[in-house]
Amino acid sequence: MSKNALRRWTTDSPRVLVDSPWMRLRAERCVTQRGAVLDPFYLLDYPEWVHVAAFDEEDRLLLVRQYRHGARQISLELPGGMMDPSENDPLVTGARELLEETGHVATTLAHLARLSPNPSSHTNGVHILLATGARPRRELDLDATEDIVVAPTPWREAVEMAIAGEMIHAQHVGLLFIALARAKGLKFGRTGE
Amino acid sequence: MSKNALRRWTTDSPRVLVDSPWMRLRAERCVTQRGAVLDPFYLLDYPEWVHVAAFDEEDRLLLVRQYRHGARQISLELPGGMMDPSENDPLVTGARELLEETGHVATTLAHLARLSPNPSSHTNGVHILLATGARPRRELDLDATEDIVVAPTPWREAVEMAIAGEMIHAQHVGLLFIALARAKGLKFGRTGE
Repeated sequence: MSKNALRRWTTDSPRVLVDSPWMRLRAERCVTQRGAVLDPFYLLDYPEWVHVAAFDEEDRLLLVRQYRHGARQISLELPGGMMDPSENDPLVTGARELLEETGHVATTLAHLARLSPNPSSHTNGVHILLATGARPRRELDLDATEDIVVAPTPWREAVEMAIAGEMIHAQHVGLLFIALARAKGLKFGRTGE
Repeated sequence: MSKNALRRWTTDSPRVLVDSPWMRLRAERCVTQRGAVLDPFYLLDYPEWVHVAAFDEEDRLLLVRQYRHGARQISLELPGGMMDPSENDPLVTGARELLEETGHVATTLAHLARLSPNPSSHTNGVHILLATGARPRRELDLDATEDIVVAPTPWREAVEMAIAGEMIHAQHVGLLFIALARAKGLKFGRTGE
């Protein structure tokens, strides 16, 4: 089968199983291109997510630590969060989340890419922004449900932790490497090849 | 607040909302360390997922293309899938999935890391394996619901696509970079810094 032979599925019988402000679970009856039936096929609708790889004036990455209940672990992550319904631009969300979660304001803020948290199940996108020259502006402004510790981390240390599997959020590892490649260049090879 | 001040949430009132062989959705009432109540807090239980960064004898990465219904796009990904209930070792799952989805058998297969697809919502882990010397063994053995095109890709091209946001599965981008760092070394800096 060639690349161009891949086709979308056809769907019917949509139903909403869970509807909350943070997540909606839907099911559909899906028929694949070879005629296989998937019923129910579950789909997760979330708002768009926006995360920021923010470098401060000492070239440290502003990471955040927080308890994550799915993994039941403290997780070291990029700051960020959901786009509010009133926000149409990921840059607005990213600047807001950076300020709320780290207390910092960036000098430059650029949109790098929109990926998917999981293209099989998730209909939303996850955006990565690159921020430079981040300066402390004020205390954190956390939701009542957020307990966050800001962790300014020399970026080469962050790379080492990511490669070692110590940053457990696989999506954030991917987003971080996209931002690092853009901000710092990226080369492979142990002997300068 | 210091890093050591982060605490797990307490939970009660667990209930199962959806239960299928592929996914279970649960809800709990959660109380954060500052006493904020999250009810319902949704949790997704999946089996463990295992993905393989497999290099063939020409040092190409064996990637796979398939239609992904959440994103409604063709997605370029690492081969892999769910651990079967009968499998206790991610290496067994990885070797099986590599053979089923690419028709290849590896000379070496190593477990690199276990991350989380999303530590906030997902209780399962996602494993990354590194395979080398992969050789074609047989035709693909796809589930009836899978339509997959194998895409052997020079690994430097895969890096360029990942950095450009053309590999949309954010988790797989993270897993791929962990594997590339291990297999090929990884350096930053545009001018040999």
